[in-house]
Amino acid sequence: VDAIQTIEGGHIASPRGFLAGATSAGIKAAPGALDLALLYSERNCASAAVFTRNQVKGAPVIVTQRRAAAGRLRAVVVNSGCSNSLTGEAGIADAEEMADLAAQRLGLAAEEVGVASTGVTGVRLPMDKVRAALPRLALAADGGPAFARAIMTTDTRPKEVAATVATPWGRYTVAGCAKGSGMIHPDMATMLAYVTTDAEVERGLLQRLVREAADATFNMVTVDGDTSCSDTLLVFANGAAEGPPIDAASEEAGQFAAALLAVCTHLSRELARDGEGATRLMEVVVRGARNVADARRAARTIASSPLVKTAVAGCDPNWGRILVAAGRSGAELREERCSLRLQGEPLLERGLALPFDEAAMRARLDAPEVRIELDLGLGEMEATAWGCDLTDGYVHINADYTT
Amino acid sequence: VDAIQTIEGGHIASPRGFLAGATSAGIKAAPGALDLALLYSERNCASAAVFTRNQVKGAPVIVTQRRAAAGRLRAVVVNSGCSNSLTGEAGIADAEEMADLAAQRLGLAAEEVGVASTGVTGVRLPMDKVRAALPRLALAADGGPAFARAIMTTDTRPKEVAATVATPWGRYTVAGCAKGSGMIHPDMATMLAYVTTDAEVERGLLQRLVREAADATFNMVTVDGDTSCSDTLLVFANGAAEGPPIDAASEEAGQFAAALLAVCTHLSRELARDGEGATRLMEVVVRGARNVADARRAARTIASSPLVKTAVAGCDPNWGRILVAAGRSGAELREERCSLRLQGEPLLERGLALPFDEAAMRARLDAPEVRIELDLGLGEMEATAWGCDLTDGYVHINADYTT
Repeated sequence: VDAIQTIEGGHIASPRGFLAGATSAGIKAAPGALDLALLYSERNCASAAVFTRNQVKGAPVIVTQRRAAAGRLRAVVVNSGCSNSLTGEAGIADAEEMADLAAQRLGLAAEEVGVASTGVTGVRLPMDKVRAALPRLALAADGGPAFARAIMTTDTRPKEVAATVATPWGRYTVAGCAKGSGMIHPDMATMLAYVTTDAEVERGLLQRLVREAADATFNMVTVDGDTSCSDTLLVFANGAAEGPPIDAASEEAGQFAAALLAVCTHLSRELARDGEGATRLMEVVVRGARNVADARRAARTIASSPLVKTAVAGCDPNWGRILVAAGRSGAELREERCSLRLQGEPLLERGLALPFDEAAMRARLDAPEVRIELDLGLGEMEATAWGCDLTDGYVHINADYTT
Repeated sequence: VDAIQTIEGGHIASPRGFLAGATSAGIKAAPGALDLALLYSERNCASAAVFTRNQVKGAPVIVTQRRAAAGRLRAVVVNSGCSNSLTGEAGIADAEEMADLAAQRLGLAAEEVGVASTGVTGVRLPMDKVRAALPRLALAADGGPAFARAIMTTDTRPKEVAATVATPWGRYTVAGCAKGSGMIHPDMATMLAYVTTDAEVERGLLQRLVREAADATFNMVTVDGDTSCSDTLLVFANGAAEGPPIDAASEEAGQFAAALLAVCTHLSRELARDGEGATRLMEVVVRGARNVADARRAARTIASSPLVKTAVAGCDPNWGRILVAAGRSGAELREERCSLRLQGEPLLERGLALPFDEAAMRARLDAPEVRIELDLGLGEMEATAWGCDLTDGYVHINADYTT
C-alpha cells in the first residue's frame, strides 16, 4: 500500500490526459458563483457508472444512464443550482441538449458525454444560460479545483483527492472529486462523484471494481437517510500513463482496486464530515457479523440514527442508543454477544455494561471525529459506515432551501 | 359511526371495572414527579398485546411477552425514568420482581400482570424505590389521568381518550392512553400504549383486531425512525358493561373494531403531534397504490424523511422532496402518474408541476397541521401516516438526555 501515495494539491484533472474547467452561467443566485463545469479526457476512455436507485430519477440520470451503457464516456458536463429533476419530458430534452452542446464543443459523439445537474428539484433548467455559458468555459490541466467547486451546492468546501500508484513499469494516477452534503444515504450514497485515472483498465473489470468500491464507500455514507434522484458516480480510465492494460487477469488489478477504494474512501469521509450542519465525522465500524450484508446494515443504521447523531452532537455517551439502532437494523444480533467501544473506550463487553468515567468520556467525544466500534460476536465479517452528528445547523439549512 | 362518541374528560379508567393510579417513587430526578403507575381490572379480562420488533428488547418486554401469551392480563405496572433495558439477566429479574410485587398487591396470578418501563437505557431499575412506593400507590376509578401522566418521559402532555359505543343492548366504552415522543417509528410504532374496554371480546378476535389496529395506527406514526426496545401496546377487555360477548361472528365485531381504531388513531395523532421538538403534526395520505403495503411504505417514508420534515418546519413548499422520498420507499411509483396536494392545494397533476403562489402556500403551511396527499395513480389502495416537523427542539432534547 506504500505504493499508493496521495498527491499534495491533487485534483480531478491530475491524471494525464484530463482537462477540466468551470464558469459562472448564472444558474446559482449568487453573482459570479461557479455553476457550470466540464471534465474531459483527451483520449478515449473506458468508463463505468453507478446511479441512484431512487425510482424518481432526475432527467440527467435518465439521459446519462442511456449514454453510459456502452462504457465509452470521456466527458461530463455538470451544473449546480438546479437539479433538472421532476421536470418531465421537457427536462429530458433539456438534459439531452446540454449533453449535446458539450459534445459539439468537444467534438465528441453523443455516447461519449454524460450530463449531471444538482440543486433544487421541480424547476426547469435555464437553457439559455447554459447555451450562453458553455462556449466560454475554458478547459485546462489545472482546472480540477474549479470543477470541484462548481459542482457544490450546500457543501462548505470542495472534496478532491489524487493518488499516484507506483508499478514496475512506472506511475499512474487515480483522482476523484465529489459534492453533496445533504440528501445523502446509501443506494446510491449521494451525490455527484467523479473519478479519473490515466491507467488503462478493461471496461468489464472497471465496472465491477467501481460497483464494489461504491458499495463499500459511497453507499456507506449517510447524512440524513434521504437518497437523491440525481446521485451519479462516473469513472473514466484513459490509459494516458501508457502502462499495460489492467484486466481481471493482470497482477495490477488488485493494486488498482486498492487505489480506487482509497480515493472513494477519502471522498466518502469528506462527504460525511461536510454533512449539512455537521460538527463531527462519525465512523461506525461493525465487526463480528455473520455476513457482510449484516455488517453493512448495522453500521449504516447506527450511522443514520437520529438518536445516535444527536447524542454525538451533544458529546453524550448514551451507548444504549447505538445498540438499539443496531437492533432494528435487520442484522442478526444477540445482546449478550455484543461488545462496544466508543473512542476506543470499552463500554460493553459481551452484553455486560462496563463502568466508565462519564466526564472523561464526554471530553473524549468532544472531537472532530467520533469512532463507534460494535462487535456483534457472531462471525468474522465487518463493515464501516460514515455519518455525522445532527445539529441545529441541519435543521436551519433544510428548513429554508427552495428560495 | 355516530354510535361512537368521544367522552369529554375520558381516560384509561373510564370503562367500567377499571381502576388506575400513580405515585412518585423517586425514579425520575424531578422531586415529586409521578413515575410509577398501575392499571387494574376488577374482573377477569381477555387481553391482547403487540410488542417492539427490535431485536434488542427491554427486560419488561421479555417478561410481559411471556406473561401475556395466555391473553389473560388484567393489570399492568409501569414506571418512567428508567427503561430497564440493556440490563441483562439482572434486569429481567428486576422486571419479574416488579410484576410480582404488583401481582401480590392486587391478589393476582403472575400471568395476569404485565410490566413496562420507559426512560434511559443501560441503567438498572432502582428496585428499592419500586418496593417502597408500590404499597402506597392508590387505585381509583378516576385515576386514569394520573396514570397517563406518570408514564410520560419527554412528552409535553398526556395523551388519553375514551369513547362510548351505543349498541342495541346498551353502551360500552373503549379508552386509551399512550406516551412517547421520541424513538418513535413503525415496528412497533412507539411507545407505551394501553387500551381498556368494558365490552366482552373473545380473545382470538381481540388479538386480531388489535394487530390490525396497530398496523394502521401506531405503526404508521414516525417521529425519528428509531424504534425503541420497550414498545408495548396492551389491550384489556373485561366485559363489565355486561353486554353479549363479541366474537368474529357477532354483528358488533365491526363496530368494536371501528371504536378500537378510532381510539388508536386519536392516540397516534397525539403521539406525532407531541413528537420531540414538534411544532406541526404532519398527516401523509398516500392513495392510488397498487397494494396496502406500498401505500404504507410510501406514507411512512415521506413522514419520516428529514428533508420533508425540515421543509414542513420552515413552511417551505419544496414538494420535490416529497416525491423523492416516495421514490426511495420501495413502493412502486411512476413519476408521470403521481399527483400531489399540499394543504389541499394541487401542486402536481400526473407528473406535471402546476404553478402556485409561493407566498400564499407558505402562509397555508404555517399551521398546526400539515396535510400531504400523494396519489400514485397505480391502483386503489391507500394509507395514512403521521409524523411531525423536525426542529432545533428535537436536536436539543436528544443531544443531552442521559443525565
